[in-house]
Amino acid sequence: MPLQAYANDLKATLRQYPNFPSEGILFEDFLPIFRDPVTFQKLVDAFKLHLQEAFPNTKVNYIVGLESRGFLFGPTLALALGVGFVPVRKAGKLPGECVQATYQKEYGSDVFEMQKDAIPQGSNVIIVDDIIATGGSAKAAGELIEKIGSKVLEYNFVMELDFLKGRDQLNAPVFTLLSGQEDKLQN
Amino acid sequence: MPLQAYANDLKATLRQYPNFPSEGILFEDFLPIFRDPVTFQKLVDAFKLHLQEAFPNTKVNYIVGLESRGFLFGPTLALALGVGFVPVRKAGKLPGECVQATYQKEYGSDVFEMQKDAIPQGSNVIIVDDIIATGGSAKAAGELIEKIGSKVLEYNFVMELDFLKGRDQLNAPVFTLLSGQEDKLQN
Repeated sequence: MPLQAYANDLKATLRQYPNFPSEGILFEDFLPIFRDPVTFQKLVDAFKLHLQEAFPNTKVNYIVGLESRGFLFGPTLALALGVGFVPVRKAGKLPGECVQATYQKEYGSDVFEMQKDAIPQGSNVIIVDDIIATGGSAKAAGELIEKIGSKVLEYNFVMELDFLKGRDQLNAPVFTLLSGQEDKLQN
Repeated sequence: MPLQAYANDLKATLRQYPNFPSEGILFEDFLPIFRDPVTFQKLVDAFKLHLQEAFPNTKVNYIVGLESRGFLFGPTLALALGVGFVPVRKAGKLPGECVQATYQKEYGSDVFEMQKDAIPQGSNVIIVDDIIATGGSAKAAGELIEKIGSKVLEYNFVMELDFLKGRDQLNAPVFTLLSGQEDKLQN
């Protein structure tokens, strides 16, 4: 099954909620994917296929998922690839020594953390999340990987808000499974 | 592989952090399980084995996971069982019509939500989370399942703080993969 066929099937399950969480935003809900094991398996298979095609000669060592929606498919993808999964969480939730990175949100800033010993130095990492908007949180996650001496091979998202140009913030390739062209709310 | 053998292997990967997140608490970190696909697979296989043994004649229809650590293995378990996964999230994060349930925390209260149409009425549900402490959040999740007209077959946790007697709060059977007897910090 080619990647585009997976993408078409998955896009058909998304649901759109205008003006959520705030006025003028069209929220793309990808949770229906997980309600059905057939579509969830397609999501996992699609990312796996992409990574095999994109990195035929480079071993992916870890999937790093962003709290919380990156947790919904990151661990399953890691298991399907036979590699480890490591979470990036909001500050204060992880025990032990952590590295930190700050990112800007609409109002104020937030801090991401990762356990310092979670990933051996020199590892190849894929960072995953459900959606890339401004790219701020993904960029902070990338900084965490740099701080522990490993490398982001690629950022993988299910959806993308193209018009925010978030991928321009990131210093590694970006792959988005479903195009987000239709995510801009027409006013 | 019998259930106890899985439990022993998994317990060996846990790490203990005294006085996290606050004084007098011994935090059991289960994140190392996910760093290694072999131990993560054991976690999933162990829950699957338990559910097959516990419900040989009853079809589990959905795994419901609590934000956010229940997201780390709930979706993978659901996929392994060939059933759907539905998240319970903190209020305000889910789009669409939701049911709500309130639970007490150490300071103040919190509200859980689930999408109203996520699970068809009359479904059999397993609620999963990493740990049961006072049982407040699990109880609230159970109320959500009741509100949408479905049934909690069982609550499944990786760990349990036995001395808090959280399972006494719940009106469905509780299964804990790893005994939490050792989680009480000796002062």
